[in-house]
Amino acid sequence: MKVLVTGAGGFVGAQLVKFLRERGRIGEERIAALAVADRMLSDVPSGAFALEGDLGSASVLQRIADFDPTVVFHLAAVPGGAAEANYELGRRVNLDATLALFERLANRENPPVVVYASSIAVYGTDLPDVVTPTTPLRPPLTYGAHKLACEILLADFSRRGLLDGRSIRLPGIVARPREPSGLASAFMSDLLHAMRAGERFTCPVSRGATAWWMSATRCAENLVHAATMDVSGADPARAWPLPVLRMSIGEVIATCAAIFGDDRKGLVTFEPSEKLEAVFGRYPPLDDGASRALGLQDDGSAEALIVRATDHHRR
Amino acid sequence: MKVLVTGAGGFVGAQLVKFLRERGRIGEERIAALAVADRMLSDVPSGAFALEGDLGSASVLQRIADFDPTVVFHLAAVPGGAAEANYELGRRVNLDATLALFERLANRENPPVVVYASSIAVYGTDLPDVVTPTTPLRPPLTYGAHKLACEILLADFSRRGLLDGRSIRLPGIVARPREPSGLASAFMSDLLHAMRAGERFTCPVSRGATAWWMSATRCAENLVHAATMDVSGADPARAWPLPVLRMSIGEVIATCAAIFGDDRKGLVTFEPSEKLEAVFGRYPPLDDGASRALGLQDDGSAEALIVRATDHHRR
Repeated sequence: MKVLVTGAGGFVGAQLVKFLRERGRIGEERIAALAVADRMLSDVPSGAFALEGDLGSASVLQRIADFDPTVVFHLAAVPGGAAEANYELGRRVNLDATLALFERLANRENPPVVVYASSIAVYGTDLPDVVTPTTPLRPPLTYGAHKLACEILLADFSRRGLLDGRSIRLPGIVARPREPSGLASAFMSDLLHAMRAGERFTCPVSRGATAWWMSATRCAENLVHAATMDVSGADPARAWPLPVLRMSIGEVIATCAAIFGDDRKGLVTFEPSEKLEAVFGRYPPLDDGASRALGLQDDGSAEALIVRATDHHRR
Repeated sequence: MKVLVTGAGGFVGAQLVKFLRERGRIGEERIAALAVADRMLSDVPSGAFALEGDLGSASVLQRIADFDPTVVFHLAAVPGGAAEANYELGRRVNLDATLALFERLANRENPPVVVYASSIAVYGTDLPDVVTPTTPLRPPLTYGAHKLACEILLADFSRRGLLDGRSIRLPGIVARPREPSGLASAFMSDLLHAMRAGERFTCPVSRGATAWWMSATRCAENLVHAATMDVSGADPARAWPLPVLRMSIGEVIATCAAIFGDDRKGLVTFEPSEKLEAVFGRYPPLDDGASRALGLQDDGSAEALIVRATDHHRR
């Protein structure tokens, strides 16, 4: 089995590559070769070979075709905040390069498995009491609109038997490094870093703001599971949200206090931005039964999630 | 008010241009200039000027920008059957050229109204008892996948205040000319032509097959209405199905017999194709309340629809 990871230099991508190298197999099959693609790979993991360059370029696409992967994890993307600020860049990577990759991988004889990292950014801001598989999708950012368009295009390639696509909608994945990421939801990770370090934090959403959370390690496990889960009789849209822990900022702070020390409770002040709260702070419960039935998993508990998320960062 | 119609040489486009020229206004405003774009315009209507050429080409896009339209009806498309047979062509016109048009028209000072001819091909084949605004969209052809992707992209341009988009999902529009159209649903029109002419017809779906029908003249009226209807507080997806008459082939034949003569009943034999029936013959009732509330309309009755559809062809 030959495996390709795009966006391998990113936060989730690096976790995924690490997990694949440690595990050495996907499902029952050994990984014979691991290729990693990224625009600027600073650190090529041993045992993998790198496809450096712009994903949409003819040369990178040709090298991907030559590699002829069995399983592709497509994670490369311009994040939401950056894509909203720079439409051209977002379109080029999140729409054009993604479709170019799908087209290049399309193969009627041996359709490769494509695990596409979509996003809960496809849902929208004015959500019902519970988000279900039939909740209408109203992306509130261009990032989410492009993710949704690519989900639809991938489902069409799957219908035509050219790819075996699985779009996985990632929730807020924590804890990302503190450097600027272009991610509008970066505050979720920054809060955890501050809690762990015992530093003051100004939270841009309210204490009651609710979001969908997952640790990066659990996310990587889920992506690998998504490559082998049986979707033969599943919804032809081939898109599933990851099961999530839905937590308010208040709950996260309380859990951090239980783990890192009671003083954490006094470190956070709130300066909610209405705009940020509308997009990232009003997630209702998620009916993720269909995802769980396929074997996808959340972190189990708030404590497990935070320990896992911050332990990762400590290592 | 400056108006542009793309796909003006097509069946619905020609009806729309005729209606615009006869009426001379959209809502309360006079049409100051009418431009028509098509790949191969054989017959440029008087009072309109033609933008001949490939919609995606830089020169046509530049001429559209120079024209600077207030209202755009974007009808140009490769039909479903043809797009399924030729992926490259379908992608180029139905996805790339459509997005290129949206980008070229985008204008934060004076966002033009864009009425986008989408299609009921976005819905899918395994439909519930009633199709509602929350029915999940599962396009069964690449044509529908591209239409849905462009609905999402247009809604995003509208959200960003760059376009004032309205995606209108067209049902089976009748009666198209009998020449080869690349339309997989052409049998709906061909049946009406045969009934009017008193000719034998072999129907590729069963007598009980149900479809959503509209005459081309009613469709043109609806598209013009869509340009001025107030969508300020409406669903941010900005996409509506046209209200339809849902009729079985049997009902259509019975109505034709009442209009054209009782002998019509004996002229149709059935050789149903399971594939065609699955895509075009199992449309359930449509909950089109939101569309009707905006002032969009069906043909009123089966008889009115068929008279209108076949009268059009006779002229």
